[in-house]
Amino acid sequence: MPQRRAADDAAPTVPELTKLSGPLGIIAGQGPLPRVLAELAIAHGVPVHVVAIRGEAHEEVEGFSHTWIKWGEIGKLFAALESHACKDLVIIGGVNRPDFGNVRLDIGAIKTLPFLLSLAKGGDDHVLSRVVRFFEEKGYHVHGAGDVAPELLAQEGKLTTKAPSAEDASDIEAAFKVVRALGRLDVGQCAVVARGRVLAVEAAEGTDGMLERCAELRKVGRTWGTRPAGVLVKAPKPGQEERVDMPTIGPKTVRLAAAAGLSGIAMAAGHVLMAERDATIKAANESKLFLFGERWDPAAD
Amino acid sequence: MPQRRAADDAAPTVPELTKLSGPLGIIAGQGPLPRVLAELAIAHGVPVHVVAIRGEAHEEVEGFSHTWIKWGEIGKLFAALESHACKDLVIIGGVNRPDFGNVRLDIGAIKTLPFLLSLAKGGDDHVLSRVVRFFEEKGYHVHGAGDVAPELLAQEGKLTTKAPSAEDASDIEAAFKVVRALGRLDVGQCAVVARGRVLAVEAAEGTDGMLERCAELRKVGRTWGTRPAGVLVKAPKPGQEERVDMPTIGPKTVRLAAAAGLSGIAMAAGHVLMAERDATIKAANESKLFLFGERWDPAAD
Repeated sequence: MPQRRAADDAAPTVPELTKLSGPLGIIAGQGPLPRVLAELAIAHGVPVHVVAIRGEAHEEVEGFSHTWIKWGEIGKLFAALESHACKDLVIIGGVNRPDFGNVRLDIGAIKTLPFLLSLAKGGDDHVLSRVVRFFEEKGYHVHGAGDVAPELLAQEGKLTTKAPSAEDASDIEAAFKVVRALGRLDVGQCAVVARGRVLAVEAAEGTDGMLERCAELRKVGRTWGTRPAGVLVKAPKPGQEERVDMPTIGPKTVRLAAAAGLSGIAMAAGHVLMAERDATIKAANESKLFLFGERWDPAAD
Repeated sequence: MPQRRAADDAAPTVPELTKLSGPLGIIAGQGPLPRVLAELAIAHGVPVHVVAIRGEAHEEVEGFSHTWIKWGEIGKLFAALESHACKDLVIIGGVNRPDFGNVRLDIGAIKTLPFLLSLAKGGDDHVLSRVVRFFEEKGYHVHGAGDVAPELLAQEGKLTTKAPSAEDASDIEAAFKVVRALGRLDVGQCAVVARGRVLAVEAAEGTDGMLERCAELRKVGRTWGTRPAGVLVKAPKPGQEERVDMPTIGPKTVRLAAAAGLSGIAMAAGHVLMAERDATIKAANESKLFLFGERWDPAAD
């Protein structure tokens, strides 16, 4: 699998995109991924319609055929997809869980109330799997961004000038162990290990919040030493719904990792999205961090 | 085991303390535990000498026979223990890992340099086990605070007016799963689960830092809803060196848990230290939090 991804990355082609029967519906949350995916689709002659979640999606999606919806406007969401004949969907970009107390529901939402209430409980993966099932029961095909556009995925091996040291390699191994253990419990997708010690583990705060905490720990001298040490490891939760919750890294991740004094970032090759690959690698080289795609077997333990 | 602890708590006696052959050496880090333990020992006719780590231990230890040492003053440490004939030791109260770059070593420390260097790497448990072995190789007996003074340990069952709800109970169960999984990897001793979702997991930031983060997540609406929900679960790492690294809770833990909007705190009965039991329970009742001692089998998985 990582092999295939690496190959895809080496010679970017987008067979999956061109195979789509009709227009691609993009349900857009935060970050640059919705725009990047829309650009790729159009570049391959696939029309898109972006359904952008207000307060989450970036305004740049207005450069494409789009509809803004608020949390709870489920009716409006499906009307937009239907009127643009989108049967193929990609749900992309992080969202914050809304406070249900502040969500106004439209008619379409009220019709699906039992489903919506079922989202108020449980871990991310539990919730996202339900969302996917919800769309598929309505006859939509939900694709992963990496499936329709494999060149968005981190490839295997060293992506930067700098490579992991022997110390980094053992921290990487330890961090992958932690991430796998956490993933099985639907906790988070990443962890930071420095010189054999687990500095931080991601849960609801997200990767950025976790990295800011590592920078803080370093400031107050809770990490020993000042030279760059430690790695951020990012990988999907085993068996998680990768179509809607694939881990991502970008230039901001790299900047925060550098601010935390880390030595580099290792990712599950083929299972982590890099929307802004060039900018991300450039940022890593400038901060003398390594980016490394670890061969990843989703089934392994 | 929890049974025995519960019994000890019900009728506080300190057989272990009175069994000590000579004076008790207390190597004191942060918090009230060193003082509370010293008071207990003296109340049972056991003389103490406190070796207080500068910048970590509270000044109140100066109320007892004591010696202040700086990080790295290993020679001074052993001189103090010898001159006060302390062969029995309790190492108690958290410490921050020093930045080795800023530690001045005395002669005694330089003699033990290979040992000290071995501490610069690895997880907490790895490090603390080495510390214990280090003292025992020198002929000292290292005791857990809970072994010499069982009334310091959290007892089994409900400690507050409020009891866990059914929802709390399932969050408690989920959180214990997470803590056990993390403990096996020497990550941390506690986690917060709210309505089935893991909000936060402790690593190097410590319990207080983790709870402050939960309060932050709640403020920014990352936790859904505003009514108190979620539990803090605290338990030792499976197989950890409990003599020097037993989890603790106190009034501050309760205040931070309340600020994070949690419903209560569950602990591994007999394996969590409550230095200020009455103040802790009082704080919990005032904030309408529950404190619950879960029966804990260190061997279980």
